[in-house]
Amino acid sequence: MTLAQLGADVIRFDDIGGGLDYHRWPLAPGGQSLFWAGMNKGKRSISVNLRSEEGRELVTALVAAAGNLITNFPARGWLSYERMRERRPDLVMVALTGNRDGTSEVDYTVNPATGFPLASGPRNLTEPANSLMPAWDVAMGGLTATGLLAADRYRTRTGEGQLIGVALSDVAFAMVGHLGRVAEAQVAGRDQSKDGNYLYGAFGHDFETRDGRRVMIVALTSRQWSALRAVTGQQKAFDQIAKATGLDLETETGRYEGRDLIAAILRPWFLGRDLAELRELFDGTGVSWGPYQSFKQLVEDDPRASEASPMWEMVEHPGVGRYLMPGTPLDFSGIPRQPVRRAPLLGEHTEEVLAEVLGLSSADIGKLEADGTVAFADDSVAQ
Amino acid sequence: MTLAQLGADVIRFDDIGGGLDYHRWPLAPGGQSLFWAGMNKGKRSISVNLRSEEGRELVTALVAAAGNLITNFPARGWLSYERMRERRPDLVMVALTGNRDGTSEVDYTVNPATGFPLASGPRNLTEPANSLMPAWDVAMGGLTATGLLAADRYRTRTGEGQLIGVALSDVAFAMVGHLGRVAEAQVAGRDQSKDGNYLYGAFGHDFETRDGRRVMIVALTSRQWSALRAVTGQQKAFDQIAKATGLDLETETGRYEGRDLIAAILRPWFLGRDLAELRELFDGTGVSWGPYQSFKQLVEDDPRASEASPMWEMVEHPGVGRYLMPGTPLDFSGIPRQPVRRAPLLGEHTEEVLAEVLGLSSADIGKLEADGTVAFADDSVAQ
Repeated sequence: MTLAQLGADVIRFDDIGGGLDYHRWPLAPGGQSLFWAGMNKGKRSISVNLRSEEGRELVTALVAAAGNLITNFPARGWLSYERMRERRPDLVMVALTGNRDGTSEVDYTVNPATGFPLASGPRNLTEPANSLMPAWDVAMGGLTATGLLAADRYRTRTGEGQLIGVALSDVAFAMVGHLGRVAEAQVAGRDQSKDGNYLYGAFGHDFETRDGRRVMIVALTSRQWSALRAVTGQQKAFDQIAKATGLDLETETGRYEGRDLIAAILRPWFLGRDLAELRELFDGTGVSWGPYQSFKQLVEDDPRASEASPMWEMVEHPGVGRYLMPGTPLDFSGIPRQPVRRAPLLGEHTEEVLAEVLGLSSADIGKLEADGTVAFADDSVAQ
Repeated sequence: MTLAQLGADVIRFDDIGGGLDYHRWPLAPGGQSLFWAGMNKGKRSISVNLRSEEGRELVTALVAAAGNLITNFPARGWLSYERMRERRPDLVMVALTGNRDGTSEVDYTVNPATGFPLASGPRNLTEPANSLMPAWDVAMGGLTATGLLAADRYRTRTGEGQLIGVALSDVAFAMVGHLGRVAEAQVAGRDQSKDGNYLYGAFGHDFETRDGRRVMIVALTSRQWSALRAVTGQQKAFDQIAKATGLDLETETGRYEGRDLIAAILRPWFLGRDLAELRELFDGTGVSWGPYQSFKQLVEDDPRASEASPMWEMVEHPGVGRYLMPGTPLDFSGIPRQPVRRAPLLGEHTEEVLAEVLGLSSADIGKLEADGTVAFADDSVAQ
């Protein structure tokens, strides 16, 4: 979808009836998957019987015409790189797997293995705390787009295509390494304990406000720390803490080690003020902070997620209604921002793609539909 | 770093003494930042006095030679696209900001605004639950690499460079939209409540084992659900639940609505078995599951994060020691995997880069160092 939002013609092929994500939550009141509608924006959809020889031949011909293929089906048999390359020698293909050995793994099963859930959550929680946001899927999406573009660049220079393999567990564990957690476990022999909403390695914590809202406050850098001290007027109290404990609160490590004391001093200050008041007090001061919002509050109250931002547009999704859809977060100065395109209905472009890309006649396409090789979007899908 | 690991010559420029992330936790026992060492693998480092005219001129000359620039400094004044482009008309520049309007935002302050922390954590938790993993920074990294490569592709075709802006809050909120959460809030008027480690919209939960370990079990697809029923031998119990409640457990929604009952039936089954036993029972069955591991357990017990995998290598980082470093998760069939390169010391390549890229003489470089315009890596950094 990242590439579709950058202007690529991305054709998603699905088995007739839809893939494993076709009913994924969240759902619209009418039952359609808002996840599917979110993740397929700007793509064209073609529905093909992937168990039939004819259906596989159609997909193979499409891949040959496109020159690029991303798949999370097992890249074996008719869908193997070798077979696909027979029809398009310079094919670039990205094959996504769960694990490097081809075994299955999803975000929700690999996340527990990364170490993060056991180090997350309130201090007194005896259980792990999973992430609701599928961060490893997101990271994999970014790498997939990067890998495809890198291979496309290589092809432009050399004429050669290639297969790129990428496994979800590799993406997740590599990131654990990049973030320094593998090194910490090995060279410092340290496992982080659960520490609630404290930031690791500097000062950061959440505070309740007088009107029952919550804010996150961060003092990672010296400048953020100075600003926080100045605006809250707690300079003296912090000096006394430093004296009492011997901690140097001017350093990240000092602020981290003194985090409970810093939070205890700031807590009543926040409890005495409303969110709106804090917004005014902090504005332009260099204090690093942000309010907690629910999904609804984000959509209803935050101008950054509204039509006031060029990234968002109100778009109608058939059978669901009009709602805010985001385009790409990337702003290219040399290429105008494209209108946000909704996700297709399943099979919405079957006819169009077979005609345009493969040059099939209406009669041919009608026959393929009649014998169950392909399907079109029907009224039951659009409700 | 993504691009450095794909073979690009990435030169990081820092102010003398290092940037804001130079002391970021986690730390090695000797005090060096393992975060910095993790996030800068494969780059070259040059230390420049960015407040001096001469230092800025050196960086500008380097950017002109490179043709590509990624920066999270404010892209104003000497570092503006307009000024940089005077020296390299086809420059591709990616300017990272916190918010679209240029105001500051970090992962830890934007995450509260996304809606996820208020919907995360145990059901009875009254506070938000932050994510320990900076997922939005990770997502932004992926988009940055994608955007740079997309603009490079455009330049190859048209000869034109451009400025690409990307804001952290846009990256985060767009993803909230892609995942269907904005649509859910708008068209279904629904905010998700905290639901512990349950999966949203299908069955998924964590279970304790007899030996005090924990596993995550997921039945998102029909096949995963059949496999779980078969291996745990609970088919009859699930049939009875379905009868008692009227839920259709063959659907994702039915399994989601019946999640507490499903978990209650499975809990004693898991508590009666050790992790090793589960591993054997589940192997090859199609059950979707994974063990919880701490960072140390990941490094010590999981072969996927070891030298048994081609992605990992034991590499020495000066002053820190040898530890496992990941290369890119992308496996290119046409390009051999590169050895994993450690992060540089701050200023390690100042001399080399000035000589090689800008063609400066040793005498010139010596003068620049003597007057404080540039700095080399010194022993105090390497300890």
